[in-house]
Amino acid sequence: MSTIGNLNYRWSQALVSGFVAAGVARVVISPGSRSTPLALAMLRQPGLICDVAVDERCAAFFALGQAKSSRQPVLLLATSGTAPANWLPAVIEASQSGVPLILLSADRPPELQQCGANQTVNQSAMFAPYVRAAHLLGAPDAGFDPGWLHRLAAQMCEQASWPRPGPVHLNQPFREPLLPNEPLPDVQDLPKIRISQPVMAPEPQAIADLARTISGRPGVIIAGESPFDSGYAEALTALAGQLDCPILAEPLSNLRFGAHDRTRLCVRYNRWLADPALASRCRPEWVLRFGATPVTRHLQQYLASVSGTHAWIEPTPGWSDPAHRLTHLLRADPAAACRALLAAAPAAVAPAWREAFIAAETQAEADQAAPHIAALIAELPDDCAVFVGNSLAIRQLDSNSGGADKALRFYGNRGASGIDGNISTAAGIAAIHGRVVALLGDLTCQHDLGGLALLQGRNAVVVAVNNAGGGIFDYLPQAALAEFETGWRTPQQINFRHAAQTFSLGYHAAESIDAFGQSLQAAFQSGGPQLIELRLP
Amino acid sequence: MSTIGNLNYRWSQALVSGFVAAGVARVVISPGSRSTPLALAMLRQPGLICDVAVDERCAAFFALGQAKSSRQPVLLLATSGTAPANWLPAVIEASQSGVPLILLSADRPPELQQCGANQTVNQSAMFAPYVRAAHLLGAPDAGFDPGWLHRLAAQMCEQASWPRPGPVHLNQPFREPLLPNEPLPDVQDLPKIRISQPVMAPEPQAIADLARTISGRPGVIIAGESPFDSGYAEALTALAGQLDCPILAEPLSNLRFGAHDRTRLCVRYNRWLADPALASRCRPEWVLRFGATPVTRHLQQYLASVSGTHAWIEPTPGWSDPAHRLTHLLRADPAAACRALLAAAPAAVAPAWREAFIAAETQAEADQAAPHIAALIAELPDDCAVFVGNSLAIRQLDSNSGGADKALRFYGNRGASGIDGNISTAAGIAAIHGRVVALLGDLTCQHDLGGLALLQGRNAVVVAVNNAGGGIFDYLPQAALAEFETGWRTPQQINFRHAAQTFSLGYHAAESIDAFGQSLQAAFQSGGPQLIELRLP
Repeated sequence: MSTIGNLNYRWSQALVSGFVAAGVARVVISPGSRSTPLALAMLRQPGLICDVAVDERCAAFFALGQAKSSRQPVLLLATSGTAPANWLPAVIEASQSGVPLILLSADRPPELQQCGANQTVNQSAMFAPYVRAAHLLGAPDAGFDPGWLHRLAAQMCEQASWPRPGPVHLNQPFREPLLPNEPLPDVQDLPKIRISQPVMAPEPQAIADLARTISGRPGVIIAGESPFDSGYAEALTALAGQLDCPILAEPLSNLRFGAHDRTRLCVRYNRWLADPALASRCRPEWVLRFGATPVTRHLQQYLASVSGTHAWIEPTPGWSDPAHRLTHLLRADPAAACRALLAAAPAAVAPAWREAFIAAETQAEADQAAPHIAALIAELPDDCAVFVGNSLAIRQLDSNSGGADKALRFYGNRGASGIDGNISTAAGIAAIHGRVVALLGDLTCQHDLGGLALLQGRNAVVVAVNNAGGGIFDYLPQAALAEFETGWRTPQQINFRHAAQTFSLGYHAAESIDAFGQSLQAAFQSGGPQLIELRLP
Repeated sequence: MSTIGNLNYRWSQALVSGFVAAGVARVVISPGSRSTPLALAMLRQPGLICDVAVDERCAAFFALGQAKSSRQPVLLLATSGTAPANWLPAVIEASQSGVPLILLSADRPPELQQCGANQTVNQSAMFAPYVRAAHLLGAPDAGFDPGWLHRLAAQMCEQASWPRPGPVHLNQPFREPLLPNEPLPDVQDLPKIRISQPVMAPEPQAIADLARTISGRPGVIIAGESPFDSGYAEALTALAGQLDCPILAEPLSNLRFGAHDRTRLCVRYNRWLADPALASRCRPEWVLRFGATPVTRHLQQYLASVSGTHAWIEPTPGWSDPAHRLTHLLRADPAAACRALLAAAPAAVAPAWREAFIAAETQAEADQAAPHIAALIAELPDDCAVFVGNSLAIRQLDSNSGGADKALRFYGNRGASGIDGNISTAAGIAAIHGRVVALLGDLTCQHDLGGLALLQGRNAVVVAVNNAGGGIFDYLPQAALAEFETGWRTPQQINFRHAAQTFSLGYHAAESIDAFGQSLQAAFQSGGPQLIELRLP
């Protein structure tokens, strides 16, 4: 009997079944040898969906998309060496955007460390500043208690989920042989730990104080990136109704689309805040902020210009205040905080305040630079997920998405706002949500070309806005430099038709808004993975 | 006057000119905004060749290839956030294979850290276990001494070069504005530090002891991965001549090709060591090892089976002894150690010893699995560089390269033996060496698809051996599993013709050895970047 091979497998079974018992439904596996015991246990584990991704960087962003969309921890498995190092960009994004990932790296045992053994790297602190917890296990030990590993899996799920979701690392050395040499029974039923997370109710005195402070005074609600939560849109808009104040809602707030009351929503502020005359009529005495830091400079500068009350309502640890203006921090569930403030019945401000914002929204000059955003929004089917890339894409969406009754879900990687892994993240969202459209720039697409492989078999449309390099730099002072094209805009020689065909994706080229609309219709009609290259004159 | 913008630029000028004064000739820049002062100083710095790569992971492997080939430190520049995190796999490879890289990450200043500012990440310990040194500078300070930064650059070059080459990190925060608002003079001439590295002469007593130990006894020389050094091949083969002992030379030893005496070279050991009858006639009493840990299991097991003297001659810190057999460690330049041992005039062993090895080499069965290796070697032009991928490619090369008079240079990423970044590394070697051929598996190619962009304009031929997934796993016990195809071999749906055309590379498909030879001839004749997809039945 291969004692070590069997031990490796039984150990892995206990761990993997523990993750499933704790609610994990998915793993993304990158092929390798040292990770074999865990991979085999995963492939044989009922209730666990296994996806395979060759490139671990894509794998990690794919898992990030799944976890972002499902809001459940997703497992990642890779072999030893640089394989898990490819996870780092997605690990940082998950850490900063609060997405639960469980990182399982296989490793060589101690006697093969630091002595030149193949594919052997110090993996102990590989993700050190970015993980909520790191577990450095020893090689499987014959006397182990399966119940311990079962419970460790539950503990890791909790660490990845609360108080702030994020990545958790487990490094697992294995000795050879890696395979069992006889059929082994399924793992026996082990006790399940029931873990409940707290209801984050706002502190009553803080609500009373805040309600008194904002009552009857001109103020605004700023809604930054926030995962969709049933009840949040209704509670927030009801509060805005009571205060009769505008809501400056970013696209990632998930407030711009849906059947809730959108009468006080401002969605064009990024256009009119640039106009000093319009902006000067809209100086608030207080700000209630929900969600993450605003994306655009105009909105950031507007916030920074307010010297009064800055309240931020946020239930999870983390600090979002780059302008250093915070006066009130309410650790509470956003919807619950809205309902509590509403119940405190603060007085509304005079209607002229809201009317100034609505007038500014109406007068805001049209943005000629991004006519494709409105065309895209018009074609999106109900209940579609939209993944929006960083740099120019998110800013153009911010200025131009408008709003509508149809339900759309918006996602972005705004934790660290990288242009990496965007296609893979969208593929992960598609795996959970179903249909997804990814709106990305050409450099962002090129950065994650391997991610196209993960779109295979999914209802996913990538809109590659090909403006020949980093279009966002056109808006920065660097654009005036003689070295601009070489060092910043960096147009690339890439043929997106062939890139799509490399992975058997449908390809559409669009050089006008009309053609873009038709491409979208055709893509939605045919289903499956598609790439639309948009090249506007 | 924009004091901060000018300060940022003058600061960057001092640092960049310091690197150039210290001998740095190349930088790979990934576009970004926060990195603008350094990028601008680099683009304007005489004597510095700037390449641009959108994907920082590709950029880092590209720089690794340049540094590996030139054996000079190469700079990397990226903006803040996850951008530098994409360097991690190449940083680990550089750390473990001893390649000098200088990592310059731009950052936000302290007042924008940990408060939700855009693209802001804790970058201080991003590469902690893998860098030789990390310098966490503050934002440029008006009273700075340019001479300090000039000297810091020299210090970093030394740290990246000696005693063991590797990556060094500098994290550089900048405040806005990022651009100077007036023309600034070139940096004035600053004092250059002359740095000399020691001649690593072997310790005389250790040489005398070792010479006495091995004199007249049966032994072998094992030559693992070693950068090409003029004089090494001649010194090592002269020593083998004196001892009349065989040299088991891996392809990355750079001993198999060239005009030196190759009569005692064994290059088919990976085939006959598997034969117990042949292997049993070749049991040595001593081993002299040069270079890195052997790649193949047969050679590793052969080494582990020797219970006598195990001497390792290695001039740089690091420990290569996964079989735990080391008895003598000589910190000395390999060629110098060979010459010193030769001067000690140890006696030769009886000729039957060498003859047993030569007989085994002659009798070794042909490897039917990889006929393309011999075909490739036959077509390679003189002075061509060959980059060989990990997994199956390096092992098939090891078994089948043979040897010849023509000069070839072999490179691989054997520090951590990852399948990541292989195309980009080959592109970096091409940037320095000129013509390069990369021999890679299909999964390895898919992992670094974005690296194809860096081949543009270079004399580089990628041979993608498409055996439908991870062919190396066929040789492992996992091949017997029902889950083998799904979890290990993982054939991919990828069209290499379109992948090549995505970046305007020439494409050739070869389905026979004859066609492969013709494709190679055509590729070398036309020049420029080419991808040959080899699909043998």
